[in-house]
Amino acid sequence: MTVALLGIGTELTRGDLANTNGCWLAQELTNLGFEVTAIDVVDDEPSRIVSALNRLAVVHELIVCTGGLGPTTDDLTADCAAQALKTELTLHAPSVAAITERLARYGRQLSDSNKKQAYFPAGAVVLPNDWGTAPGFSIQLGQAQVFFLPGVPTEMMALFEHRVVERLGVPVDRTPFEVMLRTYGLPESAMNDRLAGVAEAHDVVIGYRVRFPEIDVKLHARDADPERAKLRAERAAAEVVERLGSVVYGRGNVTIAGAVGNKLNSASLVLGVAESCTGGLMASLLTAQPGASHWFRGGVVAYSNDVKTRLLGVPANVIDVKGAVSEEVARAMAVGACRALESQVGVGITGIAGPEGGSDTKPVGLVCFGLHGPFGTLSETKQFQGDRQRVQRMAAYHALSKLGSLLAPVD
Amino acid sequence: MTVALLGIGTELTRGDLANTNGCWLAQELTNLGFEVTAIDVVDDEPSRIVSALNRLAVVHELIVCTGGLGPTTDDLTADCAAQALKTELTLHAPSVAAITERLARYGRQLSDSNKKQAYFPAGAVVLPNDWGTAPGFSIQLGQAQVFFLPGVPTEMMALFEHRVVERLGVPVDRTPFEVMLRTYGLPESAMNDRLAGVAEAHDVVIGYRVRFPEIDVKLHARDADPERAKLRAERAAAEVVERLGSVVYGRGNVTIAGAVGNKLNSASLVLGVAESCTGGLMASLLTAQPGASHWFRGGVVAYSNDVKTRLLGVPANVIDVKGAVSEEVARAMAVGACRALESQVGVGITGIAGPEGGSDTKPVGLVCFGLHGPFGTLSETKQFQGDRQRVQRMAAYHALSKLGSLLAPVD
Repeated sequence: MTVALLGIGTELTRGDLANTNGCWLAQELTNLGFEVTAIDVVDDEPSRIVSALNRLAVVHELIVCTGGLGPTTDDLTADCAAQALKTELTLHAPSVAAITERLARYGRQLSDSNKKQAYFPAGAVVLPNDWGTAPGFSIQLGQAQVFFLPGVPTEMMALFEHRVVERLGVPVDRTPFEVMLRTYGLPESAMNDRLAGVAEAHDVVIGYRVRFPEIDVKLHARDADPERAKLRAERAAAEVVERLGSVVYGRGNVTIAGAVGNKLNSASLVLGVAESCTGGLMASLLTAQPGASHWFRGGVVAYSNDVKTRLLGVPANVIDVKGAVSEEVARAMAVGACRALESQVGVGITGIAGPEGGSDTKPVGLVCFGLHGPFGTLSETKQFQGDRQRVQRMAAYHALSKLGSLLAPVD
Repeated sequence: MTVALLGIGTELTRGDLANTNGCWLAQELTNLGFEVTAIDVVDDEPSRIVSALNRLAVVHELIVCTGGLGPTTDDLTADCAAQALKTELTLHAPSVAAITERLARYGRQLSDSNKKQAYFPAGAVVLPNDWGTAPGFSIQLGQAQVFFLPGVPTEMMALFEHRVVERLGVPVDRTPFEVMLRTYGLPESAMNDRLAGVAEAHDVVIGYRVRFPEIDVKLHARDADPERAKLRAERAAAEVVERLGSVVYGRGNVTIAGAVGNKLNSASLVLGVAESCTGGLMASLLTAQPGASHWFRGGVVAYSNDVKTRLLGVPANVIDVKGAVSEEVARAMAVGACRALESQVGVGITGIAGPEGGSDTKPVGLVCFGLHGPFGTLSETKQFQGDRQRVQRMAAYHALSKLGSLLAPVD
């Protein structure tokens, strides 16, 4: 039983608004066990709305439409639903009363535009709207059950949760189970090669979501028996973890910074960072985590050499001899971050983010990392590709990934 | 001539990602004078992709598809295009060379997965991708010209702008001219009210693009005479600037951090920042600007009170008496940033990003700002709404906006 979603509105087809309603409904319906295979959008032209409804009703058994239920003249959805059904609109007295009462609460009178919202195709089931003036409704169109919801996201969500879900007859024979693994450090094509055969071996669907520079790997199993779906997804996940090793930094909703924070917290360690070329991005990723104050002391954005020397105690002669972008300086920054920020773990990042400042020996994209902590003091150099913001982003994520790999797993 | 957009990918139909590509393309094509009437999405099932292509090609003369050109096994778009054309995939040697060369730059070898990206339906026009590995392509399917672009937004946008637009046959009698103004500080509905009548008065189309927490205002004029289009757009822009005042921080591709940097540079001033609740985000936004080293000295992420006192010289008794989140501390942080970072301009930010740490008198979202420079020393307090990352983002942008308003315009 496949599901289609239909967004209605010229504000969507002109690109003034993204179809976030479709995305939200797709996620909800997927989580309920439905398979959404189409999310379409049409403009406010009645003939195109009618033909979209008729076309989708041939293929799908469930359709959820959003938009076009408002009081204005370009809100034509109910009319189009009636046309698709080859029936008339009829006035729904309880809706007139509900709309009148709602408007009265705002000190307003029922206008003709509002009254229009109480007309529905003959035979439609009206879905009362306690969160706004536009009621939703549902019709049977050919083989398809079709729900019509207002386009205002808060009203759409409330109606879906409180009026639609109970009418869906959620399929019990295909309970889905999904494991999401978070990864950093392998490009999508290499990941795909490494995971060849996993989907078939465990009868799961593997989905990749690229959130640069990370990739989420989703392992999705469906089964009449929920336990069996879970077992298949978990076995597939275990194999992915085995094949990818430390590239998998976490599972579920964790971020790479959150995974580092959890490890620091579990080991009762506090972190300080010293950033040059990443300019505060690593600190910013870390402090985006709720509760970061438990394991993050602070950072120094040492954008000029003076600051490296004065606040972090990087010896000026090391900068002179080795250059500001060198593993020696990165290590001294990491050690200096621990001292200046009274932390047990320190990270130093210095590099050339570009577009200027590169040379033959130290090209744009070259970044040196220093790490200091219970694991000792170490450093490494990486060459990243791309524009300034990409280099900064990859450097910050690399530092997080490297640090995570040096810390003990959470108990 | 109506246009359809087709997004391809199970990550879309499952609701993991919103179809932002469709929204962006709809806006661009609308601005170019096309009428987009359908924005559809299908999952990765080949039969549904093929049938969507065939169905859309009957009704539309132009179709732009996004997604499914990647290296993984669920990327099947080229294959489906060939099926719709009832032809075969053929290897495109120049694309193999381009992909190989691109991978070599990253120190990688061509894998079978990557090579797959060089296969196109026989007769397709290949659209070279200088921004990623997946080339786009174009085919003629029935009456429709169909473009296929990768789903990665940056690559999709670059290919559309540099490969597709020139092939669209945009009506030349309606040369467009567009002015883009960058704004921060007014919500969309208030902006819409303030700009009422501007579009009609100057015969332009006003488009808003929300990039939280900023809003871009686009003034788009079309005319057979390019000079007249330009004049209308410029006059409308002047009126928008007059109506919105300092809410408009720049024009064209400038960012709010870049606008601050330009003013600092022009006044030969150097900035240092001291951040608590924003945790490095302001420094990170500033250093994302190329050439930031000319006007940005560095920052201190003073996440703990110790760091505020030791590195920034904020008196411990001020923190004790007034609290870490107070205008007194914010001012002391701004002055301390100037001293510690040898800068003429300093910013201090301290607040409660949440979700924890709020109280009745100092609720989550309360942020104090201190600014110090040739304009004197001042402070203010703002109450932001939303979750942790939203509060952090609004606070960093507010600091940039406030600082920009205190600096002299660029000569």
